[in-house]
Amino acid sequence: MPTFELGPNQYGKAETRLVRVERGAGGDRITDLNVSVALRGDLAASHLTGDNAAVLPTDTQKNTVYAFAREFGIDDIETFAARLAEHFVSSQPSVHEARVAVEQYPWQDVDGRHTFRRDGGEVRTATVHHGHYGTRTVSGVTGLVLLKTTDSEFHGYVRDRYTTLPETRDRILATSVDATWRTAAGPADGAKARAALVEAFADTYSYALQQTLFAMGSRVLEACPDVLEVKLSLPNRHHFLVDLAPFGLDNPNEVYFAADRPYGLIEGVVRRPGVAIPEEVAWTF
Amino acid sequence: MPTFELGPNQYGKAETRLVRVERGAGGDRITDLNVSVALRGDLAASHLTGDNAAVLPTDTQKNTVYAFAREFGIDDIETFAARLAEHFVSSQPSVHEARVAVEQYPWQDVDGRHTFRRDGGEVRTATVHHGHYGTRTVSGVTGLVLLKTTDSEFHGYVRDRYTTLPETRDRILATSVDATWRTAAGPADGAKARAALVEAFADTYSYALQQTLFAMGSRVLEACPDVLEVKLSLPNRHHFLVDLAPFGLDNPNEVYFAADRPYGLIEGVVRRPGVAIPEEVAWTF
Amino acid sequence: MPTFELGPNQYGKAETRLVRVERGAGGDRITDLNVSVALRGDLAASHLTGDNAAVLPTDTQKNTVYAFAREFGIDDIETFAARLAEHFVSSQPSVHEARVAVEQYPWQDVDGRHTFRRDGGEVRTATVHHGHYGTRTVSGVTGLVLLKTTDSEFHGYVRDRYTTLPETRDRILATSVDATWRTAAGPADGAKARAALVEAFADTYSYALQQTLFAMGSRVLEACPDVLEVKLSLPNRHHFLVDLAPFGLDNPNEVYFAADRPYGLIEGVVRRPGVAIPEEVAWTF
Amino acid sequence: MPTFELGPNQYGKAETRLVRVERGAGGDRITDLNVSVALRGDLAASHLTGDNAAVLPTDTQKNTVYAFAREFGIDDIETFAARLAEHFVSSQPSVHEARVAVEQYPWQDVDGRHTFRRDGGEVRTATVHHGHYGTRTVSGVTGLVLLKTTDSEFHGYVRDRYTTLPETRDRILATSVDATWRTAAGPADGAKARAALVEAFADTYSYALQQTLFAMGSRVLEACPDVLEVKLSLPNRHHFLVDLAPFGLDNPNEVYFAADRPYGLIEGVVRRPGVAIPEEVAWTF
Repeated sequence: MPTFELGPNQYGKAETRLVRVERGAGGDRITDLNVSVALRGDLAASHLTGDNAAVLPTDTQKNTVYAFAREFGIDDIETFAARLAEHFVSSQPSVHEARVAVEQYPWQDVDGRHTFRRDGGEVRTATVHHGHYGTRTVSGVTGLVLLKTTDSEFHGYVRDRYTTLPETRDRILATSVDATWRTAAGPADGAKARAALVEAFADTYSYALQQTLFAMGSRVLEACPDVLEVKLSLPNRHHFLVDLAPFGLDNPNEVYFAADRPYGLIEGVVRRPGVAIPEEVAWTF
Repeated sequence: MPTFELGPNQYGKAETRLVRVERGAGGDRITDLNVSVALRGDLAASHLTGDNAAVLPTDTQKNTVYAFAREFGIDDIETFAARLAEHFVSSQPSVHEARVAVEQYPWQDVDGRHTFRRDGGEVRTATVHHGHYGTRTVSGVTGLVLLKTTDSEFHGYVRDRYTTLPETRDRILATSVDATWRTAAGPADGAKARAALVEAFADTYSYALQQTLFAMGSRVLEACPDVLEVKLSLPNRHHFLVDLAPFGLDNPNEVYFAADRPYGLIEGVVRRPGVAIPEEVAWTF
Repeated sequence: MPTFELGPNQYGKAETRLVRVERGAGGDRITDLNVSVALRGDLAASHLTGDNAAVLPTDTQKNTVYAFAREFGIDDIETFAARLAEHFVSSQPSVHEARVAVEQYPWQDVDGRHTFRRDGGEVRTATVHHGHYGTRTVSGVTGLVLLKTTDSEFHGYVRDRYTTLPETRDRILATSVDATWRTAAGPADGAKARAALVEAFADTYSYALQQTLFAMGSRVLEACPDVLEVKLSLPNRHHFLVDLAPFGLDNPNEVYFAADRPYGLIEGVVRRPGVAIPEEVAWTF
Repeated sequence: MPTFELGPNQYGKAETRLVRVERGAGGDRITDLNVSVALRGDLAASHLTGDNAAVLPTDTQKNTVYAFAREFGIDDIETFAARLAEHFVSSQPSVHEARVAVEQYPWQDVDGRHTFRRDGGEVRTATVHHGHYGTRTVSGVTGLVLLKTTDSEFHGYVRDRYTTLPETRDRILATSVDATWRTAAGPADGAKARAALVEAFADTYSYALQQTLFAMGSRVLEACPDVLEVKLSLPNRHHFLVDLAPFGLDNPNEVYFAADRPYGLIEGVVRRPGVAIPEEVAWTF
């Protein structure tokens, strides 16, 4: 029997759902999180022989998430994730690297006291890597759905044998923003970054979703001096003008079909000149 | 070969995705809908022999949805749905009843001009039945997620051999509201009904989710004199206090596990005394 | 303050996920279920004042599901659901009616011993109502996706101002079968009913999905003498022939676009002559 | 205004749904695919100024997918994806790299003629990268759900302050396999690889899911001499034994609660000694 080798590997507890309530005279505050932990280290024995002497159970990781919420509170998701990642590495000799990814679901205060309404769709994110290189933090937002009814054109593109798309001087542009940003150290001002994304989407006259992407990334870099780079993934949620001519009707950019699939997908990084991406942050496995 | 009988039946085009843009000097307005049509009538031949002489294709129903958006605009989803339902019955001798169900996805204006942000999660609904009995309209909201951190107890319930649940004097109460309401004629003030639901959830000190349900329905009836009845479907989204004692920590109602499944599901109708539900409205098939 | 009335209402534990393993010398057997309970009865006090003296907690219902799996085993989902429904009514004076809905996820044996592969997509269902009228059982299958590449036409339909659909003499016909059937007493042979659905879909030359629906329902009635009626809900999963002419290519019914939305939805009941639907079974709330 | 830089970027048409029918005397054959294209190259102008002179529209990419299905047929998804990827790079001077990812949905023949049943859940995958380095192919399977009722233990793990998990000598082990494999050139025998995964899961007595993972990867390498490495992502779908003691019942590994979240997630690569991962294949963006 041939002998094979263990390559890159990791394990952890995914999607621990945690809600924390801070109770206060001036009204409660809730933090609603989904926490996923992944650890790397001395895991060969577990793979090769089922010897778990170096394995911190994923159940323990889940317990740690809950316990830390009580012991240290949750100031912001970046700090909470970093504390967890550093804990796993520093407390376990067998763990050399940790990645903690957090999704935060926003809630709106309803009565200034203790009632909240889930602000659906949009999610705040943070992913922290901790290892010999220190602590690397990437923050972001996902599920931020934006649409503009005009100020978007698309023409002048390459044509080949398979091109049938007519050029357009006025179309709906819609996307669901998935953005992440990275600083040299410490979390950026997430509210400011998010506002920059929305503003740039709104006020950029667009000749391509790529152009809008670059404008959005640039605006975050302008608004947040500590942000080094911004990565954007923008599906082009196509809205097709319906042909009403068969029914004797015109359609002056009024009635659209919102398509599900397929969709364009535009992805890119915008960064300050000279910024290099640390390899660890690309630890997407 | 035995001969069998065709029982109740219906057909139609489901989930036509329609976005309408009204362009104006003071800023655009968008209406984002998902429209489902179901028709009943002389459909026996189509079932028994494949003779489609009485069948209005579902593709035509889809076209009609788009054309009506242009011809008549969309004031509110109840009126739009009613217009469609009445059209199918009045224009097609073979169609005797029509049900048009509409979901409306809300968008927030971003720049007062032409950019919008999808207000995720919550959806406005309307279902219109039209037949020999006239036009019946049911309106509603779904996906309205609410949570209160306190003012909720649960105790004094039946205990049998299978009961292990401890009583609680203070728990998180969370739900995703699916509500519909019905008037004698014409749409109710949906914003007022929705606000009443949120307010009653917030200010009702709760001893059971059933009690909260009744309070929410009652509040809608108080706020909207034309509403005859309210139907509520309220999943009890359990938040379990995590036992931190094994880690030497207390947990003074601070750290919770948000569970997915199973969940309680509380459903009920609240109505003005003496109101009867017209059979047609229960046409859920 | 006006006083309002409590209308129809019910409550229960939804989606209790239960896996039962029967261990045997000839190999294990697993039963993988999702069980939802809804109860009706003397629930006014709970709604009006929060007095839960008549409320069997949904947590207890969940416990009962697990305990019954051990106490009585699970022969088939119809019997298991009936046992639960009857228990809640007979053991609780305050409970007058119970509905227990079960989904069963099929697994394939892999090694004749103790390993199984989830047979994805298709789900077996049973819904039992128990009340003063006795026990009513509806069984079914959902998520059974079928497609035929030919032997499907669609033409001869009504044309109005909004009709643009071209007639077709050869199209793909595809659907996801959601079927339920009902006997006078006791569960039908589910495997036989399912096989009849598939066979009728396969061998019916179709001029309308309605015709296929009727043929499928009839075939179940032929195959299962104890089945009184069959209800079918068949989405028409449109496959559109792609126009390749712009690329200098023909498309002899070979390359299709599988659309998501909108879709036709054809629903109907096929039954033995003279069969009446008991009102309780329509308890869809 | 500061000037920022465009970092890594790509664009393309995602999720083009294609069904191809091969019609033959011995029965038809269908191929059901979801195709996603991503291109890299001279895209700076499009981002910086909205000049699309180097942009092949995503709509054209979609057209190309459909046209190629007719022009060249689809022998296997690896060849189809490679043909597309190579076409985009060779035909467009501005495109330097292409990634084509394909999901294939399996269907079972029903009647030996033209009727098929969707074999739900499991999906075959292939991802091809083409660039100056040539063509790199990764194949796989996802959504393959496996469960074994015994022959799984978990003990001997690290214990820290946050550990409460009891050791177990007999548990259910269940996962949803997401596997990819890579050869030096050409597609591997996918059916053989998949069979190896299932067999190794079944016959490995497991002391850790990591150990099962390594065994599964090794078995693929044994069965498929041309496969260089296997990557596995295995969620640990926890099945918790229900405590029935409060009801006076034992539970001899018979009745389980199937949990949704959180779940363990075990990921790793198993490879032949000395195999290096080409950087391009990690192009996950």
